[in-house]
Amino acid sequence: MGKLRRSERLAAMVKTLVDQPAGLFSLTQFAEMFGAAKSTISEDLGIVKDSFERFGLGRVETFAGAAGGVKYLPELPMAAARDFVVQLCEQLKAPDRILPGGFLYMTDLIFSPAVAARIGEIFATRFRGLEPGYVLTVETKGIPMAMMTARFLGLPLVALRRGARVTEGTAVSINYLSGSDHRIQSMSLAKRALPRGARVIFIDDFMRAGGTARGTYDLMAEFEAEVVGVGVFMATTEPRKKLVENYTALTVLDQVDEEERKVSVRPAAWLGQA
Amino acid sequence: MGKLRRSERLAAMVKTLVDQPAGLFSLTQFAEMFGAAKSTISEDLGIVKDSFERFGLGRVETFAGAAGGVKYLPELPMAAARDFVVQLCEQLKAPDRILPGGFLYMTDLIFSPAVAARIGEIFATRFRGLEPGYVLTVETKGIPMAMMTARFLGLPLVALRRGARVTEGTAVSINYLSGSDHRIQSMSLAKRALPRGARVIFIDDFMRAGGTARGTYDLMAEFEAEVVGVGVFMATTEPRKKLVENYTALTVLDQVDEEERKVSVRPAAWLGQA
Repeated sequence: MGKLRRSERLAAMVKTLVDQPAGLFSLTQFAEMFGAAKSTISEDLGIVKDSFERFGLGRVETFAGAAGGVKYLPELPMAAARDFVVQLCEQLKAPDRILPGGFLYMTDLIFSPAVAARIGEIFATRFRGLEPGYVLTVETKGIPMAMMTARFLGLPLVALRRGARVTEGTAVSINYLSGSDHRIQSMSLAKRALPRGARVIFIDDFMRAGGTARGTYDLMAEFEAEVVGVGVFMATTEPRKKLVENYTALTVLDQVDEEERKVSVRPAAWLGQA
Repeated sequence: MGKLRRSERLAAMVKTLVDQPAGLFSLTQFAEMFGAAKSTISEDLGIVKDSFERFGLGRVETFAGAAGGVKYLPELPMAAARDFVVQLCEQLKAPDRILPGGFLYMTDLIFSPAVAARIGEIFATRFRGLEPGYVLTVETKGIPMAMMTARFLGLPLVALRRGARVTEGTAVSINYLSGSDHRIQSMSLAKRALPRGARVIFIDDFMRAGGTARGTYDLMAEFEAEVVGVGVFMATTEPRKKLVENYTALTVLDQVDEEERKVSVRPAAWLGQA
């Protein structure tokens, strides 16, 4: 094994950092991995940091001292987030997505790994500052984007189930009223899935009245957990008053007009203007 | 904006490649992004390729000619795969994972983004050669690992639902007998979710008798799709005869002894010896 050039070392270092978002690596680890001095590794990391900053590829945070090291924190610049959401809205407007009953077919998009990853990056950027400890979602369609959000925040993912399962052990269940059609729904979570006092963000694909999000607050109260943020991929304009006060939507669905075969959907205002 | 050093260019290039596994980038794209000659980019990619090979970080494939470019293909060396699975088995043996009825709690592990990513990398390495076009799973617990498998193969993810949904449009449903307890189950898939003639791999968290996997074959027949591979995180030793002929398990569950509080689980034989 010949001597490693700086460029080879950098390639492997970036790959290692990006493979484990928000993971802490010590300078010693890298020094051993590459057979280089810690001062050299430190210089390398400076280069990575500059490069990521210049190209809007996320943040590289270095920590000094004995517990020192480096972390890669995924972060999508606002302009890139908006461009991505604008382009997704265009795809969502395709008339053949309109289903009987005025529903909109979007499973193919939110289950696309590339799309889920981008959404996860946007939510991670938006919610990191709230210092959550867990990412919560409810089965099924929110799981891919919640998974990627958790991955980019370096957090565990916890999925609420629509009913209690024998393979989960003792669970806490609640019944709640779905805000839009007033049907009784239930969701449950294994007791061991969340420690008391956890800070969680709730991620889901769709919000109409906000009944599911509201139910999540109630279920989290049973765990003495705090919901510090709510993020949904799409929220409807109506009803204007949702059952939760604060939430971040990426897209706003104004209307699905079955007759005219027209979908009115747009990026949320907080993403800014083009 | 000063002149870019090779090391800065490499850092951004690796980040871009790793962010989009199996995505094709043309040399022209990179040349424009970095304001460098294509010959320079080509040299850079040679360095990345060597470095990834040396550290077992995956494959970098370059294509010559007009349609030329470069792809990063995630690939976990067999020894690393085995080490990871051995370590997971140790975690699974914790007696407090034993649930009433002899079930094993493992949701925390398979919903951990880092674990799901590693599992996805192993399945991607194992199944890439079969040239699948889609990754299929069934809700709910298989979704995170199937998602990461799809991400690392650069493929769409398709999730079978336990019942038909109004938000999916016309769906094809089948009923099947669960192999272990002979209960009738059903699963469905939106007609538009899969084109005729697709090649799919099926990924799930758990296999006892293989009824769900068998059902997947039947449902795929309705789509004239071909199941070219089946991967499960855990398969039980009993029943020895599964309802599908070929499958790849990462771990084998011999027994959960409720009385003795003992879990017997081990890495599958194909992962080799330590």
